[in-house]
Amino acid sequence: MSLLVVGSVALDSVKTPMGIAEEALGGSATYFSLAAKQFAPEVNIVAVVGEDFPKKYLDMLTSKGINLDGLTVKEGQTFRWVGEYDETYSDPETHDTQLNVFQEFDPMLPDTYCKSSFVFLGNIDPTLQQKVVEQCHKPLLVAADTMNFWIEGKLDHLKKLLKNINVLLINALEVRLLSGKRGLLEGGKAILDMGPEVLVIKRGEHGALMLSEDGVFTSPAYPTEKVIDPTGAGDSFAGGFMGYLASRGAVDFEEYKRAVIAGTIIASFNVEGFSVEKLANIDKKEILGRMKRFREITSFTVPQL
Amino acid sequence: MSLLVVGSVALDSVKTPMGIAEEALGGSATYFSLAAKQFAPEVNIVAVVGEDFPKKYLDMLTSKGINLDGLTVKEGQTFRWVGEYDETYSDPETHDTQLNVFQEFDPMLPDTYCKSSFVFLGNIDPTLQQKVVEQCHKPLLVAADTMNFWIEGKLDHLKKLLKNINVLLINALEVRLLSGKRGLLEGGKAILDMGPEVLVIKRGEHGALMLSEDGVFTSPAYPTEKVIDPTGAGDSFAGGFMGYLASRGAVDFEEYKRAVIAGTIIASFNVEGFSVEKLANIDKKEILGRMKRFREITSFTVPQL
Repeated sequence: MSLLVVGSVALDSVKTPMGIAEEALGGSATYFSLAAKQFAPEVNIVAVVGEDFPKKYLDMLTSKGINLDGLTVKEGQTFRWVGEYDETYSDPETHDTQLNVFQEFDPMLPDTYCKSSFVFLGNIDPTLQQKVVEQCHKPLLVAADTMNFWIEGKLDHLKKLLKNINVLLINALEVRLLSGKRGLLEGGKAILDMGPEVLVIKRGEHGALMLSEDGVFTSPAYPTEKVIDPTGAGDSFAGGFMGYLASRGAVDFEEYKRAVIAGTIIASFNVEGFSVEKLANIDKKEILGRMKRFREITSFTVPQL
Repeated sequence: MSLLVVGSVALDSVKTPMGIAEEALGGSATYFSLAAKQFAPEVNIVAVVGEDFPKKYLDMLTSKGINLDGLTVKEGQTFRWVGEYDETYSDPETHDTQLNVFQEFDPMLPDTYCKSSFVFLGNIDPTLQQKVVEQCHKPLLVAADTMNFWIEGKLDHLKKLLKNINVLLINALEVRLLSGKRGLLEGGKAILDMGPEVLVIKRGEHGALMLSEDGVFTSPAYPTEKVIDPTGAGDSFAGGFMGYLASRGAVDFEEYKRAVIAGTIIASFNVEGFSVEKLANIDKKEILGRMKRFREITSFTVPQL
């Protein structure tokens, strides 16, 4: 089924202990769509870039079968982020953020997008996320990301949005901030009470925890041989998660579990290269191989005591 | 089979966002032995306390069937630790450490201990750990813990010890420090080359990663409803791990996997109370119930792509 993503397309300059990437392709919608396209037949991007945005990046996305009808090129410069990861590869230090044309981003869906069955609202102002939902014709499933900036600054709008979505994908700090609860299970349940049916807590190199009325699922991250650049890990996780669900159509808790695994595996590839280097160059066979391997290294039987 | 543990028995004063415990029972050998005794038929402690050590704590350990023949009461005060956890429950802030009689700890095994089949060397000076190994008569399996202090201060002694043990249980920071490698898999392999057949990387609330020549196993932590006091989580993990192995006798990779699960589940109970409150009051039925639940919330099938 068709999958719509609204988010950023950006130029990232990133330094990690493994090297440097300058003005490389980045942005939440970019990582999301490349990850999702590994599973979903149709991925539609809504985003904005400046006139300076390199044509080679557009061509690459198109060559991967990603629909760019909703990608607007506006007068001005593309969103840029400059950041650096230290040896721990935890939260990067941001050296510079230039929102540029992204500052005035006002997502308008092309008519052909409005019937997308699956919708992912990347981390943008919740009033804009709401506006996107309202442009969609009865989607099967709507998922959203958000961040501390919106939780602190636009809580009322965010809470309104939460009543209109099925899945929220956020990190552990955001769960604590949004719920006001210390424990993840306790906080997660409080968030489910705010509207979404499913909460996926992204824990980066520590895996993911999913909560819903139907149950709990927890997964470690796939242990990768070498992390090159963690940028986009959360967005590629979300892309794998949503892309897998869109490829299935139906959504029950067993499919949600496999969607978490799909996200986990795609994210594990993504961090093995700068920008989308690795993400844009994997195939289904590699993904399936790593999923099987992941099952091997995580499954166990309960002992007799 | 019989299991020997060498480590600390201490009095901890701990403050967490959930409350305060003063002069409560603590120490690595304490947490380890209570966790291990849930599985192993015989648990032998080697440790030292001062004359001020409350008799009620000795009585409690004895009532749980833990052998205290190797627990020496020395003139002076018991090892004390005063620490505090903030809202994140990550590394505690140490307000005070009084080694007292533990400073001169020179572990001597009673004759009856020397034939213990399984041996756990808690986090003490590697020269003392080595001395304990030399007092044992052909144990089936020797495991050890260590810390940054010994890795930085007594690396040669530690490297000698690593050639004489089967399993090393340490955290991710210690893996990086000991191996000099950034990645956990890369670092883990370098440590396996130093001697141990199995490396268990304890990741606290994020689970565990185990490496050996026979394979890799990774597990998230059990998602607990409410964390009260994380003190002793690593030691109770080690106790569950070793206690389970001692209960089986044989050690192959499938048993090692289940041992990681046993450690994970025991640690999940331990953090639900101050000191050993919870750990000392669980039974096999609860443990088995949580193991089954853990299997449910972590298992998945590989999708058709």
